[in-house]
Amino acid sequence: MNLIEQAKAAKKASVQLRTLDISIRNRMLEEFADALETNAETIIEANGNDMREAEQRGMGTAMLDRLKLDEKRIKGMADGIRDVVKLDDPLHIVLEEKTIASGIRLKKVTVPMGVIGIIFESRPNVTADCIALCFKAGSACVLKGGKESYASCRAITDIFKAIAEENGISPDCVMLGERPSHEETAAFMSCREYVDLLIPRGGKNLIRSVVDNAKVPVIETGAGVCHTFIDAAADMAKALPIVINAKCSRPSVCNAMETLLVHEKIKDEDLITILNTLHEKGVKIVGDEAVCRLDSSAAAADEASWSTEYNDMILNVRVVKDVQEAIAHIETYGTHHSDCIVTEDENNASLFLDQVDSACVYHNASTRFTDGFEFGLGAEIGISTQKLHARGPMGLRELTSYAYRLTGNGEIR
Amino acid sequence: MNLIEQAKAAKKASVQLRTLDISIRNRMLEEFADALETNAETIIEANGNDMREAEQRGMGTAMLDRLKLDEKRIKGMADGIRDVVKLDDPLHIVLEEKTIASGIRLKKVTVPMGVIGIIFESRPNVTADCIALCFKAGSACVLKGGKESYASCRAITDIFKAIAEENGISPDCVMLGERPSHEETAAFMSCREYVDLLIPRGGKNLIRSVVDNAKVPVIETGAGVCHTFIDAAADMAKALPIVINAKCSRPSVCNAMETLLVHEKIKDEDLITILNTLHEKGVKIVGDEAVCRLDSSAAAADEASWSTEYNDMILNVRVVKDVQEAIAHIETYGTHHSDCIVTEDENNASLFLDQVDSACVYHNASTRFTDGFEFGLGAEIGISTQKLHARGPMGLRELTSYAYRLTGNGEIR
Repeated sequence: MNLIEQAKAAKKASVQLRTLDISIRNRMLEEFADALETNAETIIEANGNDMREAEQRGMGTAMLDRLKLDEKRIKGMADGIRDVVKLDDPLHIVLEEKTIASGIRLKKVTVPMGVIGIIFESRPNVTADCIALCFKAGSACVLKGGKESYASCRAITDIFKAIAEENGISPDCVMLGERPSHEETAAFMSCREYVDLLIPRGGKNLIRSVVDNAKVPVIETGAGVCHTFIDAAADMAKALPIVINAKCSRPSVCNAMETLLVHEKIKDEDLITILNTLHEKGVKIVGDEAVCRLDSSAAAADEASWSTEYNDMILNVRVVKDVQEAIAHIETYGTHHSDCIVTEDENNASLFLDQVDSACVYHNASTRFTDGFEFGLGAEIGISTQKLHARGPMGLRELTSYAYRLTGNGEIR
Repeated sequence: MNLIEQAKAAKKASVQLRTLDISIRNRMLEEFADALETNAETIIEANGNDMREAEQRGMGTAMLDRLKLDEKRIKGMADGIRDVVKLDDPLHIVLEEKTIASGIRLKKVTVPMGVIGIIFESRPNVTADCIALCFKAGSACVLKGGKESYASCRAITDIFKAIAEENGISPDCVMLGERPSHEETAAFMSCREYVDLLIPRGGKNLIRSVVDNAKVPVIETGAGVCHTFIDAAADMAKALPIVINAKCSRPSVCNAMETLLVHEKIKDEDLITILNTLHEKGVKIVGDEAVCRLDSSAAAADEASWSTEYNDMILNVRVVKDVQEAIAHIETYGTHHSDCIVTEDENNASLFLDQVDSACVYHNASTRFTDGFEFGLGAEIGISTQKLHARGPMGLRELTSYAYRLTGNGEIR
């Protein structure tokens, strides 16, 4: 089947999911978790094929590590699914209930999306995660992973399909693209008839390509040029650990800081302490003039630096004259992901929280907290950087839509 | 300025709106309503230019009527704005507030979209309506109307711009495209940098073109192939008025019925009564075999009939064997807008309400109620037929997004 035929089949299968009781959905997910562990050998064998092919094509070590599945990672996938089982049902929640002027009883309830398309890269464990989240949210899914992880993703998907079949559910509720061509993938991304939502999971280029080519509604995820602003009234005992944590704890992820903004009234010795600590951790500094004057090893920033997402141990540092200039800088160069002010001045904190146009705005805490689990969502399918539908970390609820149900007694207008 | 430059200017102006107090927003809208009335002559003069040009180009009577503005219609626009003033502020509503595991205090609050692009056709009163709704929701807007209504829209927009300026707000918060070329409009629809949301308001072709060409998140509105299903257990005293109302009260709108599905157990005489009443009202019937057998004047439906949105006094009628076949028909041919079951059987009603995948699903009431005002939203910018972000009638709240505000005390991860 090509990807469009798969989407069509998934749409058909999604009808059955629409009213599937939560007890059945949870039981099937528990069976899925167990089956992943009992079939670990099969998965590892399939993954071995992917690994051999990838090695032969000269894939780098970091990529190979992402691709690899072993007993421990499979247990991790299974435990992840068990965590999804524990989450509340996101469906059939009554958001509003009222009698409207005509006398009709109106109920606004959460309902499934229908068919969710997910386009991702080489990590095969994304497959299990997406299947679990979409299925729990009552939606069918069509997964399109990187070609290099196809055998691994196939093995995982087939395990769920078998469980669906045993439970009298169409196995088409979970579809895996069979190494589709670029043209096929492009057609799929435009297929509003069968696909209700498209989520890209991966690097910048993947996301860019999906956003540029899709006609299906997309949620843009990921890109994070995050800022920390140290205000004049900052408590340096908070500022230093926040800065180090935001940059160094996991520089490769989207909620890591890329630019540090420092109020001009911060003492040189305090800024030097921060820069030195960053150097000790192995961070390279890209600074404006004021910073380069204090730190001879800093590279000079140019216009492009401020909008660069390094995802690495590199940090832009800029001195600004006040909170307004910090806000303006973030407005110009940020990606509306996560930004932080460190200050003891409540007015400046409020100004920053109200005016910075980002999904997550922090006062005196590291931007690294932007995460579905940290926010208590119990899951995360991505971090939205757009304003439509979902913003910031997306959990199960963000994978649902709503509908109006209206009960009357013969009312006409 | 071209449309992209206008969007950029609107984005800049939107920063100021983000924190503009509701009392100021409301006062400015009241001034806007008053100014429309006091400047009615100027608007009517500008509209006269549009009308003359349109007549010269041979525009039809119905279109000319849509284009026309007079004292009464201007008063209608002003009163519409005064109604928007009365609505609750959709901004700064706390959707959730909790302390997350790290000890950070999390607040999820409604925030403005930023810049909303609206692409519409020839009705100039849409201008005042969109300005009022977007401004109340704290967003700047960029309006691109039909070329034929440019002078009228310009006059209305300029009145708001003058009020903005008097109140110290950048007049760029409301932008009207200056008869942009197709290429310019296409570039605007792809401009994710400055436009946060795109709403097409108009006919099928306009909506199709926006959905096909936009890279900015779009809300698809409008298309409505709505169904009414008369179940075996229907009370005919409810069914007849609902059918007549759904088809005849305003056949040109998206919530009007296009297809009537009738359970095969409905008596011939009851169906004949319905068909005859429809005929009396001037409705042409397009029927399946069973219907054509009962009604010699009915045209024979073909496959394309079932997915046609007539927006006219034409109705498809089909006999189905049960509620499941009715649901399957709606799944295949519907547009997920509004669908109704007429029945006294609670089980069939529940089945229909749960399984029909439409924004608004009715039990014993006319689909014509799908409307922002009828639903008590106090406004309506469109009726969404997609599942992302907003579904069904969209009011002020649907023009907002949300953001997380997190207050810590030096927390790191």
